Amino acid sequence: MSMNHFQKNVYRMHLYALYFYLALFGVAADAEEGMWTMDHLPLQAMQRDLNWAPQATWIDHAMHGAARIANGCSASFVSKDGLVLTNHHCVAECVEEISNEKENHMIDGFLAKERTAEKKCSAMEVNRLEKITDVTVTVQKATQGLSGTAFKLAQNAIKAKLSEQCVGDQKAKARCEVVTLYQGGQYQLYRYHRFQDVRLVFAPEQAAAFFGGDPDNFMFPRYDFDMSLIRVYEDDQPARVKEYFPLNAKGPSENEPVFTIGNPGATQRQLTVAQLQSLRDNFATNVIPGLAQYRGLLTEFGNRSPESKRISTAELFYVENSYKALHGELEALLEPSVFNQKTAEEKELKEFVNSKVGLKEEIGDAWQTIEQAEIQANTLRIPFQEIEKNQAFRTVYYSFAKMIVRGVVEKSKNNADRLPEFNESELPQIEAALFSEAPIYPEFEIFKLNHSLIKMRELLGVDHALVKKILGKQSPDDLAKQWVGGTQLADIQERKKWWNSDIQTLKKSTDPFIQLALEVDPQARELRTRYENDVESPINKASEKIAKARFAMYGADASPDATFSMRLSYGRVKGWTHNNEEVPAFTDFKGAYERATGADPFRLPDTWLKAKNQLDLKMPLNFSSTNDIIGGNSGSPVLNQKGELVGLIFDGNIHSLGGAFWFDPKLNRAVSVDSAAIVQGMDKIYGARKIADELVGR
Amino acid sequence: MSMNHFQKNVYRMHLYALYFYLALFGVAADAEEGMWTMDHLPLQAMQRDLNWAPQATWIDHAMHGAARIANGCSASFVSKDGLVLTNHHCVAECVEEISNEKENHMIDGFLAKERTAEKKCSAMEVNRLEKITDVTVTVQKATQGLSGTAFKLAQNAIKAKLSEQCVGDQKAKARCEVVTLYQGGQYQLYRYHRFQDVRLVFAPEQAAAFFGGDPDNFMFPRYDFDMSLIRVYEDDQPARVKEYFPLNAKGPSENEPVFTIGNPGATQRQLTVAQLQSLRDNFATNVIPGLAQYRGLLTEFGNRSPESKRISTAELFYVENSYKALHGELEALLEPSVFNQKTAEEKELKEFVNSKVGLKEEIGDAWQTIEQAEIQANTLRIPFQEIEKNQAFRTVYYSFAKMIVRGVVEKSKNNADRLPEFNESELPQIEAALFSEAPIYPEFEIFKLNHSLIKMRELLGVDHALVKKILGKQSPDDLAKQWVGGTQLADIQERKKWWNSDIQTLKKSTDPFIQLALEVDPQARELRTRYENDVESPINKASEKIAKARFAMYGADASPDATFSMRLSYGRVKGWTHNNEEVPAFTDFKGAYERATGADPFRLPDTWLKAKNQLDLKMPLNFSSTNDIIGGNSGSPVLNQKGELVGLIFDGNIHSLGGAFWFDPKLNRAVSVDSAAIVQGMDKIYGARKIADELVGR
Repeated sequence: MSMNHFQKNVYRMHLYALYFYLALFGVAADAEEGMWTMDHLPLQAMQRDLNWAPQATWIDHAMHGAARIANGCSASFVSKDGLVLTNHHCVAECVEEISNEKENHMIDGFLAKERTAEKKCSAMEVNRLEKITDVTVTVQKATQGLSGTAFKLAQNAIKAKLSEQCVGDQKAKARCEVVTLYQGGQYQLYRYHRFQDVRLVFAPEQAAAFFGGDPDNFMFPRYDFDMSLIRVYEDDQPARVKEYFPLNAKGPSENEPVFTIGNPGATQRQLTVAQLQSLRDNFATNVIPGLAQYRGLLTEFGNRSPESKRISTAELFYVENSYKALHGELEALLEPSVFNQKTAEEKELKEFVNSKVGLKEEIGDAWQTIEQAEIQANTLRIPFQEIEKNQAFRTVYYSFAKMIVRGVVEKSKNNADRLPEFNESELPQIEAALFSEAPIYPEFEIFKLNHSLIKMRELLGVDHALVKKILGKQSPDDLAKQWVGGTQLADIQERKKWWNSDIQTLKKSTDPFIQLALEVDPQARELRTRYENDVESPINKASEKIAKARFAMYGADASPDATFSMRLSYGRVKGWTHNNEEVPAFTDFKGAYERATGADPFRLPDTWLKAKNQLDLKMPLNFSSTNDIIGGNSGSPVLNQKGELVGLIFDGNIHSLGGAFWFDPKLNRAVSVDSAAIVQGMDKIYGARKIADELVGR
Repeated sequence: MSMNHFQKNVYRMHLYALYFYLALFGVAADAEEGMWTMDHLPLQAMQRDLNWAPQATWIDHAMHGAARIANGCSASFVSKDGLVLTNHHCVAECVEEISNEKENHMIDGFLAKERTAEKKCSAMEVNRLEKITDVTVTVQKATQGLSGTAFKLAQNAIKAKLSEQCVGDQKAKARCEVVTLYQGGQYQLYRYHRFQDVRLVFAPEQAAAFFGGDPDNFMFPRYDFDMSLIRVYEDDQPARVKEYFPLNAKGPSENEPVFTIGNPGATQRQLTVAQLQSLRDNFATNVIPGLAQYRGLLTEFGNRSPESKRISTAELFYVENSYKALHGELEALLEPSVFNQKTAEEKELKEFVNSKVGLKEEIGDAWQTIEQAEIQANTLRIPFQEIEKNQAFRTVYYSFAKMIVRGVVEKSKNNADRLPEFNESELPQIEAALFSEAPIYPEFEIFKLNHSLIKMRELLGVDHALVKKILGKQSPDDLAKQWVGGTQLADIQERKKWWNSDIQTLKKSTDPFIQLALEVDPQARELRTRYENDVESPINKASEKIAKARFAMYGADASPDATFSMRLSYGRVKGWTHNNEEVPAFTDFKGAYERATGADPFRLPDTWLKAKNQLDLKMPLNFSSTNDIIGGNSGSPVLNQKGELVGLIFDGNIHSLGGAFWFDPKLNRAVSVDSAAIVQGMDKIYGARKIADELVGR
């Protein structure tokens, strides 16, 4: 691990952050913004804000005790025997996988009383970050002077090469990724240890994990037991881990400094005004209405029968959660003060650039380039999403077919020439998804496919050539039924057979989804190339330039936008005040019982009702803190200064949704399950004393 | 009818219009913008643009031959025996009303072979405009110097008084409305003859009327037979009408001048920038996602069973149509050039005001007043919509209960003191709705109510006092089932009994919806008062001032924003060119057969398939014209210079959706069923020779 940049320029960075907040909010107190890479922590600022900064051993412990789940969540090791703590909603897919018509573990929860009863999650992968290497010079050199396709291909090639070298012959156990930071101002090679044998140990009832449901989502006060435990295995034995976070059975106290280590997915704090506008318009006209309609369809699909509800619950959760989060982001993007502030900031930066000889020539009209690319994006976005991003064919069968059709072609090429997702280092992940044992429900696949075909016709138009070709003289519903009825891809052996075949063999397949994927592929590839050339490449190059300008003006140490790679955020346990109303930092078990109505989503499960008398009702259940987090941080450990786990991030408050675009230190709060609640709950509600002991390191 | 303003200032008005287009689009050709009141037609401009202007007799004929349907559509008399032509989608509610599980007239269509077979539409009312009287001075005088509640009450009182005097003792046959024009710059009293005995004569299959369905809605080329025929009766006999529009069996020719007479619902062409922004944000975050979600729910509700589909089809049509229309408007509102243009225009007007002594004092900071009121609106809008506008309780039972609860209180007051919708002149319309014989389907009512209760909790918050009180410890679904199961309001006699009771009796009712309406009413009234005082009144007063400023700058003869009152728009039959692609003005029957796939919504009904050989396939089916129309114009007659009906408005093209905010003469087109198609269709497809003869006046 490279830590040589630690002490550099921290002070200047923080001034920049302050400048930004002062302008936007007129306050500076407790501005704990920033999602910091582990090799570049703002130690001076931490010392100043918290009167404490971590030592190298603490940092090492934090980095190796934390984990990432490849499906987009964070997690951490909590025992020497490979026990991993994350959110319930991060393992929902696995809980559904091990459920069936008779045993619904989403409703009833799951507890493996013995290790032998722990149940395999077939598509789950846990990653532990091992090493960070700066590869900026290598990557930038490889693409120097190139643009368009050539730029993209060269960048793919160098990234593939670096990842491949990094993985070496450890394909099964290592995963390497080149992480783009500062919009391309920095490239880092992250090497992970990969665990692919993941087993479910414990998941509470969804009624407890997601108490309050969609209405309480992103709200606080909150009373959720949104936790789960999985265990990673190696050679069929619980993996032995050196670094892990024992739970502190008392939880944190108010104002205590706390640290989250996780994998925030994406922030857009460096976007230009043109990009924010384009994002806003896309959210308003496309993303939000699309999610809202699908939400309605799914809700009513679940009313078909209890079984329909069971098989669609995880999807509905995902959709409602996305809807609420993105709706909050849209509201932020419609806030005129944000645009005014961003416009003023952009103007200042442009003036700075134009005032500096050399810089002016280097940066040039980067903002204009992005504006032009966004106009292209507006034209290309919908066909690109529908055809290349599979939105038109929302069924797992099509995903399989497309992976196969693309895979057999790409695998036959040199690693450096492949589409990046088919690089050697990515293949284990693709194969895990392709050969997943998760059950498939034809009724649900028909439902999703029918809707997405109708939506394709709506979005691309009745007279679009591909739409006409695909739909022909049939209705989307008939086609969906016919294709789902005719495919063999539900059979894993079938998928394996095609995956290991070649394009000539594939072309002879009569499987409707393989035929469909073959038919769509040329246009999908063409759209991807156009999107990469006309949108992504110009934006990437221009963003790199703007990042340089920003470094020149403000200094090089603002924290980079989130990229689903490991970040630390520091803060304190704290409530907030809004509209003269004070929101306290902690909730307790008592509050949960008071809020319960008996009707979903405010129904507490029987285990909770039965255990009420055994509980210390004043024990904290959830708490809020000032840490700067975002989607992807779900499941992140919250550590104290001793490196113990005191909380488990599972949400942000409603004000945190604007966090995609800026951090509001007054109102933006992370929301966690208190470690004290986890220990009490496992022991007293779920009768899992042994696990509770394992968690506190007894 | 007052026509004394006809010749005034037309030239100045048109210059203003031209100024506006030139600035926005850089073109001026064929700018046929304007929805003109019948007492104020732009005769000089028509003479110049069409080389023709109507005589007083033509205008009189047009005004009295046209009709309005109280549900929000337009129509016209097409025979001396009270036959009325409108769109299929304007009578969908009636078609559902006369359908049942065995006879589905939405699918199979309806044709009364004899007059005795014509079927009553219980909730339908047709209005014919008789007289227009300018009452501006009277209304403005009554509110002079008042503001807030006093202003609102005084305005209600004078409007009620004027309407009451106008109706006199003709309550059953007359309807009077004070129409607000130019945002309060002008008030006119419209007196209508009301027909409440309305019977269905003909409706084609929905597959023909709405061929292409949602995908083709607002699109062109188009192939829809979106027509229906109803007949108005008086004293159980077909009403005798003097003015009506015989159909021209050949239809119009390209470039021919054509005139629409109808009731455009609402345009927002005079809104300030602050209002447009507020509208945009409300569409993006609230209206569009709400419609999208409900659309998804309804679609999947229809998949429960064929009967579910039947009883929800009209609602789904309404929702999909609204979604597409408002989505188009949102896209227009996100167009930066619109905001730039509006901002520039506003700035110019403000500068003009500030440069004129006297005007400056009179108009003052009207824009600022509106901006402040919009901030209030943003806070109040959702509770106001949910609680006062019944969005939280979307079931016909609650609408009944609320009409009853409000009605018994309001009816006991003097006319001038009532909420305006309970003025004496409005009671026949309310009673028609309250005593409607339209069937009610408990399953559908539960479905709608459940969703709206969930949405109320989402929008107002779990902890909102009224939400807590209403939901208590139960789930929305349980409550909906319980209330719908327990109500007696499905029985018309029951509704009559309560309507004629008093508040003390009502308070003893155990009907769950009457109890609910009583519980909600105080808060609903309070919200309404706040919304009127803090939003509507200040905006109305400030808008009046801005209208005055506009008059002072541009002259008094721009056409007023649409207000669901009679307007004429002139134009020509014409296609358009977009992205270098020419869209011809006409489609023909041949095209419909070519587009048909056999699968909904591109399935032609059997009647059409069977009649194919009997048809002149080259005969025009639909056409586009440059008339300036908007929602509410559905069913409008399209007349030629002879006063014959040559078309039936049923839609606008996709570019017409921005027409809410400005008129784009290059692209905005109205879309009609050709009169030739109506005559051929009735005769050859539906075998209704007698009706075809009645239509052409044989």
